[in-house]
Amino acid sequence: MKVVCSKENLLKGLNTVARAVPVRTTLDILKCILIRSQNDKIILTANDTALGIETKIDALVIEEGVIALEATFFSSLVRNLPDSDITIESGENDSVTLYCEKLKTAIPGKDADSFITLPDVNTENSVTVSQFTVREMINQVVFSISDSNLNAAMGGVYLEVFDNKIRMTTLDGHRISVRVNELNGQYPKMTSIVPGKTMTDLSKIIAGDQNKEMTILFSKNHIIFEFENTKMVSRVIEGEYFKIESMLREEYETKISINKRQLLECLNRAALYINESDKKPVIMTITDEEILIRLKSQAGLIDERISIEKEGSDIKIAFNPKLLIDALRVIEDETVDIYMVKYNYPCTIKDSEGKYIYVVLPVNFTEE
Amino acid sequence: MKVVCSKENLLKGLNTVARAVPVRTTLDILKCILIRSQNDKIILTANDTALGIETKIDALVIEEGVIALEATFFSSLVRNLPDSDITIESGENDSVTLYCEKLKTAIPGKDADSFITLPDVNTENSVTVSQFTVREMINQVVFSISDSNLNAAMGGVYLEVFDNKIRMTTLDGHRISVRVNELNGQYPKMTSIVPGKTMTDLSKIIAGDQNKEMTILFSKNHIIFEFENTKMVSRVIEGEYFKIESMLREEYETKISINKRQLLECLNRAALYINESDKKPVIMTITDEEILIRLKSQAGLIDERISIEKEGSDIKIAFNPKLLIDALRVIEDETVDIYMVKYNYPCTIKDSEGKYIYVVLPVNFTEE
Repeated sequence: MKVVCSKENLLKGLNTVARAVPVRTTLDILKCILIRSQNDKIILTANDTALGIETKIDALVIEEGVIALEATFFSSLVRNLPDSDITIESGENDSVTLYCEKLKTAIPGKDADSFITLPDVNTENSVTVSQFTVREMINQVVFSISDSNLNAAMGGVYLEVFDNKIRMTTLDGHRISVRVNELNGQYPKMTSIVPGKTMTDLSKIIAGDQNKEMTILFSKNHIIFEFENTKMVSRVIEGEYFKIESMLREEYETKISINKRQLLECLNRAALYINESDKKPVIMTITDEEILIRLKSQAGLIDERISIEKEGSDIKIAFNPKLLIDALRVIEDETVDIYMVKYNYPCTIKDSEGKYIYVVLPVNFTEE
Repeated sequence: MKVVCSKENLLKGLNTVARAVPVRTTLDILKCILIRSQNDKIILTANDTALGIETKIDALVIEEGVIALEATFFSSLVRNLPDSDITIESGENDSVTLYCEKLKTAIPGKDADSFITLPDVNTENSVTVSQFTVREMINQVVFSISDSNLNAAMGGVYLEVFDNKIRMTTLDGHRISVRVNELNGQYPKMTSIVPGKTMTDLSKIIAGDQNKEMTILFSKNHIIFEFENTKMVSRVIEGEYFKIESMLREEYETKISINKRQLLECLNRAALYINESDKKPVIMTITDEEILIRLKSQAGLIDERISIEKEGSDIKIAFNPKLLIDALRVIEDETVDIYMVKYNYPCTIKDSEGKYIYVVLPVNFTEE
């Protein structure tokens, strides 16, 4: 193999595929990035067997070929090269020589044949959606994935496409997060439970550009994300997702409208009074025009009042403030509506257009 | 005690004194910041017994008094308060109540009497110098402090004032770093070996503003830095500093002038090929118009050429690249002059005006 490419393109490609290089593995070849030159492109591939990423960069291909290079070292080396053209040449015994300006370096490669290539997936259906939308939605739901091993589906984002909608749902034992966006065009129903890590990696690779699109391709065991010159192939989590519809109730006894920033900052302060050994809840006392937010722990007592608009009954209800903080942080509305039924019923934060629903379970509390 | 101050001022003061709060200590009171109200000021003090910092902030003092508060919790709380006025009131049993907008919080304080106050130091001489200069000089020498316990003086910055000059020197077993700046006015000789941590803390607290001055006061066992409303009192390292003059030789066999950025980037690349278990040196082969820089290790072989201007003999000499990198990173000149004698003699990087001298010992090498 002999190719010439720009440092900038190569580094961008390496950073993209690096997310599929496992941090820890006993299989040396998985720590490598596969570099294949073909036509006028270099194809970079990394694969931790659950997630594989492939990206193409422009290059002058003098001789086609393929080699595997240890990802971390090769990426640091390229990052430290001058901003210039880089020539990559593979030789005998998988050795690789790089040239860049007045620099020459010989580094050991690995046998490309032992590399585990990306699976060949027969996809059934696909959807085209803005990269920006996907990135936003992931960030808006991914925090309520459960890292417990009790239930595999809890470790995933439930991705649904139906009619002209894309929906992402996550849940752990204490909350549910749902985001919905509209699509251009009508689609048949497609669903997939995508591992949380895949979604986080995807959100970090895709552009924040509203105008750039991506294609999501569904199959039984895999999901594929295609954008620009990059393809991510991920295994999906098998099984059925939870039936959450019954949890998203419409009835309520109390509805409040509150300034989001004020509530968030207040809960952030209250959360400071909690520590691992003293997990006290924040108690909210909701009356006609005001919410009193109180937390009492060994660290002290904090009391704060925020003006609200209220419909329905007064209520006293307690929460782990972190769960509310996580939801409020990703809501962009200036004012949020919170719906409650009883002190021991799930509480719902949702907008009137149905773009988001955050359900949070309250916790028990004792009056001091 | 009852005082009112702005969140901004209080937070700034807390951040300043926080550097004297020990990260780990078995003495609970050292984890506290002392808050004393007096006249129209709040005086904040922290003291880890080696270093003490005191800073004054403007306040409305309704009732004079003093209280100690756990530093980390109190700082996070203040950081999370609304940008508004804060009222601090101490009550019975060292309890403290804070008010800020519609928030009220009661937190436990600690008995101020058990706080270890700053030592009362009789200073002998002092110097006035720009904060910017001191901060720059610290950053330019502090990296070659030795963290070994073999020799206490190696853990300090040797600070000298004499004539119209301020000089800082550090050394470990492998290198010496010297920075000199001019002062406004003539001073008698004053010297002190200041612990590295004190200097690092100082550099992080003082402003980067060229126009702001500070006063450094010397005494036998302490050094005091005074700037704006802040005073840092640090113990000094006892004993004599090393006689380094004989190491700063003027004679050389080879002198090269080289582009600093090119050399630094080249050494950064070469350093990638070193790992803990395979500490190979970078070998420099200096001929008339070029330096060949080579490092060979298990990770590979890297070879790079840089154009130079040379005076004197050709030379081949080897270094731990990290030592050269540390020095080059803090030199602002575009071109640096490097002076060498023999492959096993110290090498010197210095400017013609005598503002900096970096001496680096070479290492042994074998030809491959």
